Amino acid sequence: MSESSGQKVWERIFCPKTLAVLGVSASKLISFGSMFVKANLDSGYQGKIYPVGSSGGEIYGLKIYQGLDQIPGPVDLACIAVPAQSILSALEECLNKGVAGAQILTAGFGELGTEEGRKIESGIAAFGKKGLRIIGPNCFGIHCPYCGLTILPGGGFSKKPGDVAFFGQSGGMAVDLGYSAPGLGLGWRRMVSYGNACDVDAAELLELFADDPQCAVITGYVEGVRDGQKFLRALKSASLKKPVVLWKAGLTESGSRAVMSHTGSMGGEGAIWKSALKQAGAVLVSGQEEMLDTVLAFQHLGEWTGRGFAVVGGGGALGVASADTAEEFGFCLPEFSESTRSQIQKLLPSVGTSLKNPADVGNPMVPPEILGKIMECSASDENIDAILLIQIIHHITWTTRLQFGNPGQPLAGMSWHQKLAEICNEIRQKTRVPVIQILPPISSEPEKMEVENVLRLARQASHGLGIPTYPNLKRAISALANLNNYWRGRKAKM
Amino acid sequence: MSESSGQKVWERIFCPKTLAVLGVSASKLISFGSMFVKANLDSGYQGKIYPVGSSGGEIYGLKIYQGLDQIPGPVDLACIAVPAQSILSALEECLNKGVAGAQILTAGFGELGTEEGRKIESGIAAFGKKGLRIIGPNCFGIHCPYCGLTILPGGGFSKKPGDVAFFGQSGGMAVDLGYSAPGLGLGWRRMVSYGNACDVDAAELLELFADDPQCAVITGYVEGVRDGQKFLRALKSASLKKPVVLWKAGLTESGSRAVMSHTGSMGGEGAIWKSALKQAGAVLVSGQEEMLDTVLAFQHLGEWTGRGFAVVGGGGALGVASADTAEEFGFCLPEFSESTRSQIQKLLPSVGTSLKNPADVGNPMVPPEILGKIMECSASDENIDAILLIQIIHHITWTTRLQFGNPGQPLAGMSWHQKLAEICNEIRQKTRVPVIQILPPISSEPEKMEVENVLRLARQASHGLGIPTYPNLKRAISALANLNNYWRGRKAKM
Repeated sequence: MSESSGQKVWERIFCPKTLAVLGVSASKLISFGSMFVKANLDSGYQGKIYPVGSSGGEIYGLKIYQGLDQIPGPVDLACIAVPAQSILSALEECLNKGVAGAQILTAGFGELGTEEGRKIESGIAAFGKKGLRIIGPNCFGIHCPYCGLTILPGGGFSKKPGDVAFFGQSGGMAVDLGYSAPGLGLGWRRMVSYGNACDVDAAELLELFADDPQCAVITGYVEGVRDGQKFLRALKSASLKKPVVLWKAGLTESGSRAVMSHTGSMGGEGAIWKSALKQAGAVLVSGQEEMLDTVLAFQHLGEWTGRGFAVVGGGGALGVASADTAEEFGFCLPEFSESTRSQIQKLLPSVGTSLKNPADVGNPMVPPEILGKIMECSASDENIDAILLIQIIHHITWTTRLQFGNPGQPLAGMSWHQKLAEICNEIRQKTRVPVIQILPPISSEPEKMEVENVLRLARQASHGLGIPTYPNLKRAISALANLNNYWRGRKAKM
Repeated sequence: MSESSGQKVWERIFCPKTLAVLGVSASKLISFGSMFVKANLDSGYQGKIYPVGSSGGEIYGLKIYQGLDQIPGPVDLACIAVPAQSILSALEECLNKGVAGAQILTAGFGELGTEEGRKIESGIAAFGKKGLRIIGPNCFGIHCPYCGLTILPGGGFSKKPGDVAFFGQSGGMAVDLGYSAPGLGLGWRRMVSYGNACDVDAAELLELFADDPQCAVITGYVEGVRDGQKFLRALKSASLKKPVVLWKAGLTESGSRAVMSHTGSMGGEGAIWKSALKQAGAVLVSGQEEMLDTVLAFQHLGEWTGRGFAVVGGGGALGVASADTAEEFGFCLPEFSESTRSQIQKLLPSVGTSLKNPADVGNPMVPPEILGKIMECSASDENIDAILLIQIIHHITWTTRLQFGNPGQPLAGMSWHQKLAEICNEIRQKTRVPVIQILPPISSEPEKMEVENVLRLARQASHGLGIPTYPNLKRAISALANLNNYWRGRKAKM
């Protein structure tokens, strides 16, 4: 297949103009097929949906076709949710109809570990060779906010288009990542949950995302792969083009067994895998949280490869912790120069505050304008490559109201997060030193929901202006280490 | 001093019947002294408060005494917020009045690193030898919910009495821990922020808490100590009586420098400290989050020393992750016996779910009664020592409403967390196998506050019945490892 016809096939699969859903029944609304139709209607899928099911009739105002061949005009993508025993005939129909790709939600094949399961699965895989590309089986399929195509649960799922791609065996993880992204201001280019990967696999998706100019960061969750060498080659080549943030699960004995029963692939020997993946340039993470933290750093901090942090904030313990954590990850908190220190000194009362770095501003209520000036001084110090600003929203709002305000005062109005985000943004643009906000949650009881609301608004304001935020120092510094290692590694290879 | 008179002194300091606050001015409401008076009024301090300040007059309806000697009757504890240059004369007044202890909020002594600062501080320390015990200077002092005595900010700060004690140099950290505790259902016995520790120090507080029958768990945040051997002896002895969950900061070069300017003590050589603290039996943690996670395990899981986890929940990726994480921390996910597996099999549809352990229940909406039966089967497997139950509240409520409900339906009513907490509690009582809930937050945008509310109610319901909850597997398993290591270590010493 030529490159351009290959691209065209993938355009039809990722951004289909027409979508057939096989396995729909008007009388079974709670089934994968019917739910998938509703999900894509709710999510505002821009193409045409053709439900298909032997019973016929109507669902959500759409005609249910009794066979794929009865659909007028071409079908780009088929979503298949028929029972396992009908899978091969459904695929045969798709092939005859000229469908570009089929994503198979149905489970019960290779992952069962039975002879029968494996046999049907290789039957499925054979269609890939004939020109009908297969996503799955045992998967959730494709989510593409650019055309509104989505996976279950659908409707309220992340709709924001963006430049982050995801590939992974686990559908549940695709869902969780999709739901997590809006709170971080992240948008997706495409997400692909590929389950048993009998045809389209991690390596191929890596290549596609690497060559996609609208994709800036690739994320992946890999349990195991069938052809390790092929995967490593694709990873190596993709990593030279853009960061690949990868969670490789199943690196232990128990983990490897869990992988086997989850998607029927081999986890492999942990230590060997780890070193091979690192050598291939992957940014390795060990969970969903670290994956998203790292993506946030790649999204906002460019090709940052610094070493020295300035830490600015109130509360000495956070400062000490930042120094420990920085060193743990290979960074440092360089002592401010005499001139930096004397400039900062003029901005703050001297007793109870230490200004050598961390710049302990003494209490959490120091207003944005003064914090801005302290950050600007810090940024001008030649040893400082990034600023970590600690802001305790709980104290700025709730504690302040308790001590000085009246109980009815809305907390959102007391928070200066918007102003502070703007100041952070100005400083980073003026000085080229990035600012990262640390916003610890502190309280978590039901009675403190109002604080949580302000915290979320503060994160939103910062992310909107390109200032990443993290709930604690460790997560911030760990994400910065991942960013740093990637760019150092990549620059060394150039 | 005899033991009983020593106890009496500490009763007067921790639970004072009378409290003098030095450094109060009717015209300066925003000053440590005045704020401290308000904080203790708001927190419902049960004893009598005597504000003291040269200006006289009234504050919050209380007479301001112009000298300590004018107060009728004895004073148990003095809180001192006078300027640094007046500190010694204030202490002289306290000594003459027969005050048992003085907590000094004023800063600007040894931590400045100046000759003058050190000189005044040793003057302060001298009072300790004369019978006036000193907490501080440069500290927030004592929080004791048993008598309502509190630190700044006061009023809305944790009021729940409990059996967890805290000692630490950092006042800010005491505040943050105090605010964090209610969300975890934890209550405090006493919290002591001791700042520069010129008289009462970490070692002495450790001894006091170790000998206090109403204290079950000790937590501590230590930057540095003056007498390392004394501290290690106290730690060793305390650890044989109850767990001491300790965060030792300043273990790196930068950290050590930050400690120096924060509270004027030496951080010391990291590796040596670490191994000495471990040998002395401390449960070492590296942050506030891990500290509280670990306390939660000690509060609810007794003397647990198991090794094998059963993981129950929907979403295969979480299962694989649990196996990896378990092994990383020295635990395992033993494969279920044939009989366990066949029992669980009967409770679930077979396709798409794997039951070897993790028991992947296939989707997040499996109701509590079925989860209960699966957990009970798991608990009866001889290799299972604890159950990790994964519940995704977001999907149980928000996603379910999206797919099957109506938009106006309140999410709290859709969640079965109360029922599930009760079932978890029954299982743990019946089988003696503890159940730990994993409640990942998933979403964090301002529009999803309703989910966060249910999550908080779910945590509250579980903690109320003695079932600990964690936001992710790693934090749960890390806390269990700390618990396990403590009890194994302690039992080996018996």
